[in-house]
Amino acid sequence: MDAQFKERWEQLQQLMSKIISYSEAVGLLHWDLRTGAPRKGVEARSETIGMLSTEAFKLQTSQEMGELLDFFAQSEIIEQLDDRKRRMVEECRKEYNRSKLIPEQKFKEYTVLAAHSESKWEEAKENSDFAGFEPYLSKIVAFKQEFIDYWGVKETRYDTLLDMYEPDLTVQKLDEVFDRLRARLVPLVKSILDSPNKPETEFLDQLFTNEQQEKFGTFLLEQMGYDFEAGRMDESVHPFCIGLSIGDVRITTNYIQDDVTSSLFSCLHEGGHALYEQNIDKELEGTGLAYGASMGIHESQSRLWENMIGRSRPFWNRYFRDLQQHFPDQFSSVDAEAFYRAINKVENSLIRIEADELTYNLHIIIRYEIEKMLFNEGLSVKDLPEVWNRKYKEYLGIMPPNDGLGVLQDVHWSGGDFGYFASYSLGNMYAAQFMHMMRKEIPNLDNLIEEGNLLPIKEWLTDKIHKYGKSETPAEIILRVTGEELNPDYLADYLEAKYKEIYKL
Amino acid sequence: MDAQFKERWEQLQQLMSKIISYSEAVGLLHWDLRTGAPRKGVEARSETIGMLSTEAFKLQTSQEMGELLDFFAQSEIIEQLDDRKRRMVEECRKEYNRSKLIPEQKFKEYTVLAAHSESKWEEAKENSDFAGFEPYLSKIVAFKQEFIDYWGVKETRYDTLLDMYEPDLTVQKLDEVFDRLRARLVPLVKSILDSPNKPETEFLDQLFTNEQQEKFGTFLLEQMGYDFEAGRMDESVHPFCIGLSIGDVRITTNYIQDDVTSSLFSCLHEGGHALYEQNIDKELEGTGLAYGASMGIHESQSRLWENMIGRSRPFWNRYFRDLQQHFPDQFSSVDAEAFYRAINKVENSLIRIEADELTYNLHIIIRYEIEKMLFNEGLSVKDLPEVWNRKYKEYLGIMPPNDGLGVLQDVHWSGGDFGYFASYSLGNMYAAQFMHMMRKEIPNLDNLIEEGNLLPIKEWLTDKIHKYGKSETPAEIILRVTGEELNPDYLADYLEAKYKEIYKL
Repeated sequence: MDAQFKERWEQLQQLMSKIISYSEAVGLLHWDLRTGAPRKGVEARSETIGMLSTEAFKLQTSQEMGELLDFFAQSEIIEQLDDRKRRMVEECRKEYNRSKLIPEQKFKEYTVLAAHSESKWEEAKENSDFAGFEPYLSKIVAFKQEFIDYWGVKETRYDTLLDMYEPDLTVQKLDEVFDRLRARLVPLVKSILDSPNKPETEFLDQLFTNEQQEKFGTFLLEQMGYDFEAGRMDESVHPFCIGLSIGDVRITTNYIQDDVTSSLFSCLHEGGHALYEQNIDKELEGTGLAYGASMGIHESQSRLWENMIGRSRPFWNRYFRDLQQHFPDQFSSVDAEAFYRAINKVENSLIRIEADELTYNLHIIIRYEIEKMLFNEGLSVKDLPEVWNRKYKEYLGIMPPNDGLGVLQDVHWSGGDFGYFASYSLGNMYAAQFMHMMRKEIPNLDNLIEEGNLLPIKEWLTDKIHKYGKSETPAEIILRVTGEELNPDYLADYLEAKYKEIYKL
Repeated sequence: MDAQFKERWEQLQQLMSKIISYSEAVGLLHWDLRTGAPRKGVEARSETIGMLSTEAFKLQTSQEMGELLDFFAQSEIIEQLDDRKRRMVEECRKEYNRSKLIPEQKFKEYTVLAAHSESKWEEAKENSDFAGFEPYLSKIVAFKQEFIDYWGVKETRYDTLLDMYEPDLTVQKLDEVFDRLRARLVPLVKSILDSPNKPETEFLDQLFTNEQQEKFGTFLLEQMGYDFEAGRMDESVHPFCIGLSIGDVRITTNYIQDDVTSSLFSCLHEGGHALYEQNIDKELEGTGLAYGASMGIHESQSRLWENMIGRSRPFWNRYFRDLQQHFPDQFSSVDAEAFYRAINKVENSLIRIEADELTYNLHIIIRYEIEKMLFNEGLSVKDLPEVWNRKYKEYLGIMPPNDGLGVLQDVHWSGGDFGYFASYSLGNMYAAQFMHMMRKEIPNLDNLIEEGNLLPIKEWLTDKIHKYGKSETPAEIILRVTGEELNPDYLADYLEAKYKEIYKL
């Protein structure tokens, strides 16, 4: 038995290694496309990406994989697995089921539809033409409903989708935390918008060269502890972070000439993602667990650095003089306090990706509520614009003038990514809960930040979160680190305290 | 029959596509390693490269490939193949035989040995320790001798090795051309070294920023017709050109602060390689024939641009003023003629890769003669240093002070690359023969160059050589383009005329 166990485990390891190698190659091919591959090579490149992705998919759903998973599912075998091995098998099984439970022909039809739907969405968004997009979106939703049946309905139908992005997260839990969060944020936003004490932001509206911005971004990443020997920074249209291996986690940024804050905060944001992947325990490499625990936990790391550290007063008390040194012409007559207030201005914007730290969560709650209605409560796709607009009016006091600036603004639904949006706000809530704990364990945190000593933050996060990679679930992590389940009050407390002070409420 | 033919052809095409996709991915993974991948990712990256290369190798030598090649080898099937398909099958068969004719276990042993041998060579070169390297090199040579038996002895044993790099090239032909070339070059070099009319080169010894060098290199590449929408230029320790697909042919250069000529001529050299691959007929993509015809033909394109155009008087009559504009501080008091003479200085250097256009060929002839002695005439590995030194004294009038600067200088032999060196001089000879024909067909060539109109050169080369890719053999190309076989007199004529004028002989 033991010999058979060893042999099978060896087989599984080899399969995993191959899948991981494909994933690194495909990752690099994508990275290259987005950071400077020549235009005329795109066609051949797409074929190469398609071929390698297909090979990886074939391995993941192969008969060999199925047999190995069945072997390790036997009760007398499970007993022989240590925690890490058990997690590894669980993750493989999840990936396997996600594709294998759906009839191959169905899956193919869906893939073709999703590709069409995405390009239809692009057109529809530009023309604010929801009616033109509606038939496609309806089909996507119908497919997803079918998939839910194949995958198996959890507590509710929508729970099955949530679980794809945030394992074990439920509608019951999310309803509870989002209700509490919304109840506190909606009135807060309202009183902020009514406040006469608005920050000045005119001085942000200047010209900043790419070279200046790149130098300052690099400086901040070094301060955070981003390891440039295990990564690199490039430019791309949309900033992103991609982990090719633990020793190669790359980020990109985008320089906007008349907006220094865009690239600056994207460096902190992507840097937060990158610190996570650079600091996963090296022993997890090759196991399939050397990734982030979930979308939500990943997002907590980026948002903690971008907002809770990067938009804090202690941070700019320390780093504003570096900003002035990097941009002497632009900021010579501004002070740290004015800058701090400017980068924390709250506005009831229509567009999620342009939203500030506070209202962002309301954009997400709206999407969550609508997705739940679609999958659990029989909302028809054709009624989406009306529900969307009503909720924007109610929560943010603002009404989209057209669907391009409303229900059509995000790509996610066109590709079938339902259940994904919640991760963004989960990230904020996790981050606030982690920060609360970090402040308890590092009582002089603000002093350290004001001294420019950010490494204890990185070390705390590595010790509590990063090094575990995917070997614990999100719920296990939050419980181990903070001693309680996800609790939205930490985020609400943090936001209230911060913004009441800024807006003198 | 026809349906079966179609089906089998489809199968072969699909196999080829996969192999080509792997090759693009592996190419990019290598390119990235050499242009800026972070140090700490190298280990995981090496595994990924190993895995993908193995997969490609498995396809190339698979049972399926063997069966398909056997099918297309049937005489009644061959008749149905058009020229392109026949070439495609021939190339696949060559690749297949190269690996399949050698017993798997032997091939594995050899691969391990070659890896060891390369690192032993590095050590030995540093310590000028030929004795320490000799046992490894002896084993490599013994393996290659065995392989020759497996592959089949052509006219002579060494012919089998030459054919790997330059299809159909023979010792008989090479002996003839190299003898003629050597007979004319050795006395030419001797009289140059005795000449009192040496070019001044002090003004080359200045500082040039990387930015200045990059701008000038980019300018020259644009002048040549290198398509930056189908490629890009980066920096690496050793310059190289890599074709990922016809639409993505990348080059690199290396900036040396106190030597502007190094990067400048590497741009022209790699640019010449790149023009070849960018201008292969798009219809050859996916056939396995969208590559250069051979090492020698490839090298003819780089050397034609680097030396015959790039080190010519008409070229600098036109572009010296651009050089001055790019480097106003360095070249304000130099003229085009002085620059032309300086970049064509001849020296009897010990090191091949530092040699000038003229003596370079003698470095190659020495290596060719020695390799031939090793494989055809029973020369023992332990006698290599003595033979090496004697030939350097005889042909170049110079004796290596130690083996590190002598027989140990090149990596090729340590990895078993015997038969490769000849390609470099073949490139020079092909290039001179092509140039001779180009001058016939474009009589005002020098005027065009002096006007800065280089595109007719690119177009001529595309029309005569580039577009064919690998669909003709080197011998077919040279015969079609110039109306005769390889003839070393064109190179000797060109070199004599050029250098007698420069050195006033």
